[in-house]
Amino acid sequence: MSDDSSSTKIAAALRQWIATAPPGAQLPSTRSLVAQHGASPVTVQKALRGLAAQGIVESRPGVGTFVRAVRVARPNDYGWQTAALGSPNHRLPHLPAALQPVPNDVIALHSGYPDRELVPERLVRAAFTRVARTDALVARPPTAGLPELQSWFAAELASVTPSGFTPAAPSDVVIIPGSQSGLLTAFRALVGTGRPLLVESPTYWGAILAAAQTGVEVVPVPSGPDGPDPGALARAFEQTGARAFYAQPNFASPTGAQWTPELAEQVMDTVRRHGAFLIEDDSAHDFGMTADPHPVAARDDGGHVVYIRSLSKSVSLAVRVAGLIARGPARNRILADSQAESMYVSGVLQAVALDVVTQPAWRTHLRRLRQQLKTRRDLLVASLREHAPDARLEAIPRGGLNLWARLPDTVDLGRIVRECRSAGVVVGAGDEWFPAEPAGNFLRLSYAGPHPGAFPDVARVLGETIARE
Amino acid sequence: MSDDSSSTKIAAALRQWIATAPPGAQLPSTRSLVAQHGASPVTVQKALRGLAAQGIVESRPGVGTFVRAVRVARPNDYGWQTAALGSPNHRLPHLPAALQPVPNDVIALHSGYPDRELVPERLVRAAFTRVARTDALVARPPTAGLPELQSWFAAELASVTPSGFTPAAPSDVVIIPGSQSGLLTAFRALVGTGRPLLVESPTYWGAILAAAQTGVEVVPVPSGPDGPDPGALARAFEQTGARAFYAQPNFASPTGAQWTPELAEQVMDTVRRHGAFLIEDDSAHDFGMTADPHPVAARDDGGHVVYIRSLSKSVSLAVRVAGLIARGPARNRILADSQAESMYVSGVLQAVALDVVTQPAWRTHLRRLRQQLKTRRDLLVASLREHAPDARLEAIPRGGLNLWARLPDTVDLGRIVRECRSAGVVVGAGDEWFPAEPAGNFLRLSYAGPHPGAFPDVARVLGETIARE
Repeated sequence: MSDDSSSTKIAAALRQWIATAPPGAQLPSTRSLVAQHGASPVTVQKALRGLAAQGIVESRPGVGTFVRAVRVARPNDYGWQTAALGSPNHRLPHLPAALQPVPNDVIALHSGYPDRELVPERLVRAAFTRVARTDALVARPPTAGLPELQSWFAAELASVTPSGFTPAAPSDVVIIPGSQSGLLTAFRALVGTGRPLLVESPTYWGAILAAAQTGVEVVPVPSGPDGPDPGALARAFEQTGARAFYAQPNFASPTGAQWTPELAEQVMDTVRRHGAFLIEDDSAHDFGMTADPHPVAARDDGGHVVYIRSLSKSVSLAVRVAGLIARGPARNRILADSQAESMYVSGVLQAVALDVVTQPAWRTHLRRLRQQLKTRRDLLVASLREHAPDARLEAIPRGGLNLWARLPDTVDLGRIVRECRSAGVVVGAGDEWFPAEPAGNFLRLSYAGPHPGAFPDVARVLGETIARE
Repeated sequence: MSDDSSSTKIAAALRQWIATAPPGAQLPSTRSLVAQHGASPVTVQKALRGLAAQGIVESRPGVGTFVRAVRVARPNDYGWQTAALGSPNHRLPHLPAALQPVPNDVIALHSGYPDRELVPERLVRAAFTRVARTDALVARPPTAGLPELQSWFAAELASVTPSGFTPAAPSDVVIIPGSQSGLLTAFRALVGTGRPLLVESPTYWGAILAAAQTGVEVVPVPSGPDGPDPGALARAFEQTGARAFYAQPNFASPTGAQWTPELAEQVMDTVRRHGAFLIEDDSAHDFGMTADPHPVAARDDGGHVVYIRSLSKSVSLAVRVAGLIARGPARNRILADSQAESMYVSGVLQAVALDVVTQPAWRTHLRRLRQQLKTRRDLLVASLREHAPDARLEAIPRGGLNLWARLPDTVDLGRIVRECRSAGVVVGAGDEWFPAEPAGNFLRLSYAGPHPGAFPDVARVLGETIARE
């Protein structure tokens, strides 16, 4: 154990002793503390100096160390901050369920993150170990990102770009620290405070949070298992004068929808006609099960699609790296915003991401992941059908990490979530996924969390809870 | 070599061949490409499919592969974006000199980052290697940060908190992805768009950038080698109704100023009297040379000081981790903003930061760093005095990474920067460090960059350039 952590431990033990000791009590001698903790006199002295610096003990040279007269632990008054802070510019939603930590002993279907067994742990470990030997540790990468990683993102999109379209160039790519950062940057740079942004309803809660954070005015467009309603989208553009539409065309969260090529064409026609941007969030790119993702960005070279492609969920939660692809002045405005926000993305994280996705084993991992997700999805679907038939699935998603189940309109959704929780099952209420009022009682059920073997039990708990309502 | 990278190489070679081939030309057969590149037929086919998908070649089954009729590389028209983007909410400054990359063959005194020999490279490598074996790779840390790292930041500040003040608690700490992120969060959460923020003038350019990004209204308070003018500070609070003052009380960038205890008391009196916040940026905490840092936050337990303490510059540029310490409702508002912005900081980077700063070797490194910086500073000071006496140093900084030199009012600063640059020496014009008009002709000269042995040459070039004016 390091010297520092030993002295921290000794200090902690002494704090406990002091807590029940009268003021003025003499502490055990350094010699006896050395013996008691098996530490060096230097370490013990360090712990004592720390406590003295904090005014908890006082040392009388040649005599010993004593507990100081106890100060009344006065509660600090921060009331003055109320006036200084004023009302917030815009109220941020509470910490969404998808980010809330839960104890290990519950079965969690609420998280937006994949379980450990679904990430390429060995690949990532090896990459960190390799990169730890390189200059990525001491070099500052360019603000737009590592050139090799920019090229990789551009090449990935170019590989599905049909002939007749100019493929994205490496210089169109801006490397950003995760897709949330990309949403904020796109909303700030392309929309701006107080201006309208069209979003699907329901949509990804991170986008709702980013809209609140940037103060853009969210305009919901109804969406479902087939994607957004193109007529409603066109009307929303006309009525609001919006210049941007945020969407997830592939395996949307929470609905799982994947746009057909025809819908993608229709949406892009509308977007082009209104001189607008499609902010395409391709978060589930690596999570296709029975379909491949078809980025809409691949069929646009007019700068209308701003494409965000994160690697954090599929590579590792610790590798917060995403690519944002944009063209024309929009790209420059995005880069300026992103620079002001984060200056640059850790060179180590960029190098690790590049290392992982360029390994042949990455493709093998993605193929296995596809199967694992499909098996998990099928088990959860079958379990719900058997044990919770009232949790109705409007569609079986072909990709993504979750099911979107509709409960009867008559139930009390909050109570169902609470009762499941008391039975050890955490499910996410659909409400957080609606930018305005929810269109019904929905649950978002992730099949990507831990303990997939428990899906039948989960379904049973859910079915019984609904039946009791 | 992986299958993927071979086929990429073959595709690149074919592109070059195609670039000089007439439209309709037949490509070499698969068999000859296999022989030429020593690759498998599968790999060659993959390269050809890629080129076909991009519309560069077309395959006629049973006949061969042909160069497609060359499309005119039409320049895409992004003019429509002008209307969609509108005027920016606030103009961001250009990429500051301190972030601009320069070739290796020039001597760079413009950067804000320490040279490789000043960072604990071996410690950081070892930490990454150790952490790569842990669960930090797959676990999502709490949004406020790794508890152990929160405790470390709190303990560091507590260790210099005098008795009579309640020391910061681990729960007062929010871990953020670097100090720039902390400035943005503090400006958004505590000030808000359009509201006044007092800043020293000159001040850190990153703070000027963050103010522009968040749209807060910057109010400059004159500052110099002794820190800000307390009378001017009090008047600025009175006249603007500002509720926050951003400053670097220890080894400020660019002036190097360290506040005396008396000045710190005066500033805090003013801040408290106006029910305001001091946003204390302690970026140079680890860069004391002939003095230790004395965080003002250590003498405040009323929630008036919001303290930002970054590890990126002293641990590693790749470890973008900082601690922000705030109390009361301000802390909650900051946490909410920070969550919406970055959700959480990479668990690997947090674990690496914690690993490094809790090693006994970290203290040894800091002691050596102190000496290295002092030697570099002394050499640059002596070189300037000998060869560039017109670059006047108002004070010799006791910490930090740079000198702040004033040139005669009559010179053309831009020309001097350009002429030094043509002579292979990059120096930073002081203008970027002033929130409004610069108060004179200043240069910021970093002694923390590469090639300190060249300081006498740098001074000679600078002296001759000034003399020619």
